[in-house]
Amino acid sequence: MQEFALVQRLRDRLAARRPDTRIGIGDDCAVIAPEPGVELAVTTDTLIAGRHFPLDTPAFDIGYKAIAVNLSDLGAMGAAPSWLTIALAAPALDEQWCDAFIDGAESAIGRADVDIIGGDTTRGDLSITITAIGTLAAGSAIRRTGARVGDIIAVTGTLGDAAQGLALWPERATLDAQARTLCDRLSRPQWRAGACVCGLARAGIDISDGLAADLAHILKASTVGARVDVDALPASAALHDALPDAAARQRLQLTGGDDYELCLVIDPADVDQARNALDCALTPIGVIEAEPGLRLVDRLGHAVDILQGAPSGWDHFS
Amino acid sequence: MQEFALVQRLRDRLAARRPDTRIGIGDDCAVIAPEPGVELAVTTDTLIAGRHFPLDTPAFDIGYKAIAVNLSDLGAMGAAPSWLTIALAAPALDEQWCDAFIDGAESAIGRADVDIIGGDTTRGDLSITITAIGTLAAGSAIRRTGARVGDIIAVTGTLGDAAQGLALWPERATLDAQARTLCDRLSRPQWRAGACVCGLARAGIDISDGLAADLAHILKASTVGARVDVDALPASAALHDALPDAAARQRLQLTGGDDYELCLVIDPADVDQARNALDCALTPIGVIEAEPGLRLVDRLGHAVDILQGAPSGWDHFS
Repeated sequence: MQEFALVQRLRDRLAARRPDTRIGIGDDCAVIAPEPGVELAVTTDTLIAGRHFPLDTPAFDIGYKAIAVNLSDLGAMGAAPSWLTIALAAPALDEQWCDAFIDGAESAIGRADVDIIGGDTTRGDLSITITAIGTLAAGSAIRRTGARVGDIIAVTGTLGDAAQGLALWPERATLDAQARTLCDRLSRPQWRAGACVCGLARAGIDISDGLAADLAHILKASTVGARVDVDALPASAALHDALPDAAARQRLQLTGGDDYELCLVIDPADVDQARNALDCALTPIGVIEAEPGLRLVDRLGHAVDILQGAPSGWDHFS
Repeated sequence: MQEFALVQRLRDRLAARRPDTRIGIGDDCAVIAPEPGVELAVTTDTLIAGRHFPLDTPAFDIGYKAIAVNLSDLGAMGAAPSWLTIALAAPALDEQWCDAFIDGAESAIGRADVDIIGGDTTRGDLSITITAIGTLAAGSAIRRTGARVGDIIAVTGTLGDAAQGLALWPERATLDAQARTLCDRLSRPQWRAGACVCGLARAGIDISDGLAADLAHILKASTVGARVDVDALPASAALHDALPDAAARQRLQLTGGDDYELCLVIDPADVDQARNALDCALTPIGVIEAEPGLRLVDRLGHAVDILQGAPSGWDHFS
């Protein structure tokens, strides 16, 4: 399969449908025309085979995840996903592989109104770099800087599944259906459409490196601290079954990455409205405090020390 | 050097300076706020070590070229370069290497009003994917589709230097100063600021794959043909000296890539104005005709057949 054939295929499958896409794939650049009063959120993420996904990952899952992690960043900012460019390096362009990759991309986009407007294909070790552009009302971006003392910290969905899925990955062929859902969380994370909590969330981030590390970014940017109730961390039934020991489970939920849930900081008066606006669960897990740092407590408010020795962040070069 | 240290360095060196950059590096997304009436041109290009540049290319030149090829696409569209994201995969992040890379990027940006608003760094084989976003007045993009019969085909600068530079690359240490300029054209191409011919050029493309292949994209998109005078192809003194044989030189000029000059199609009445608007030479080389296909002639108008057997395009997977 030739480069131009892949571009043509992408064009046929995911052609420009948005009215504000003036020129889609096929010229030196795409041209987009945001409406007046609209600002654009822009994010870029690279996925490299063997680093961000196992080498034997099916093409569908690669296409899915490459899109999902970028749309997750847009969601965390409160932006509605609108445009994508896809840069794909691959050892060869097999027609079947490309079709499955595009199927996965399409599945990750789901019902979002997204046009793929450009990209690049080149021969090389498998890696995908996507730039995603989202739209939001001027001045409405959900930043990391807006957390205030007394605000509620809440997370969407459940935490820890993807990290447990990674641990189970080598034996996924022999897992029962419930345990396999953990692996699915890793390979096909559901990005959260944070645009619906624009104006409700004071701060937000998507949980890609683990709750503790990602929440720390908000705390630092907002110059505040937080208390988090580890017993409140939402866990799936599959994770409960896989890790019945509470401390082990909670450690994974605090440090495990790749869930792509949102961590939102919300005025207590707005939590119910935010919960109603989202199409997924929203669980309060803690509160913003003036004292810097992250304090972990149990449901009785007693300090717990389950993160000792755990990594405090994720650095691709450390 | 750690990932966060590189991001901090980029932020310090190439921080958000544009008033329409609302949020630069440091959140889940950057946020940009185009003025009303402004459309955005978006392009993405990947450079892979050993494929798009020799493995022993200095970091400065890699940073330079990765930026230049993307700004060239914006120029071809008539857009003014405004924002960049940089996704860098590298085996390790050496501080000196990063500084030289950023120096090169800064040099390629030159006096253009460009903010680096985001990106990604990850460990992997050396490759760089950049997404460049440019601004242009609504409806003014220079497309490939606008060429009309009777229009003049003109190119900026000189052609063929980069291809000859590639041929000379292995012996570059022993070349004289003039011959070395050919290698410099390959490693540090000067992108052309096509924004100044917006409204003057009816069609345009940047010459990355060779004049014949790139002009063919315009002819196909505009459903026209062209006659090109091979004796009119502008050549540098260095290329004349390196390839005194006219046919060999012209073949290289027609098929050699990486010059990143612009091929513009202009109404004959507007050629002088376009020449005055550009800060570089603009040389008429041919004319748009109704009959499909590309006809090569000499200065006397006689057909020449110097492309026989030459590749008609560039496909990274063929």
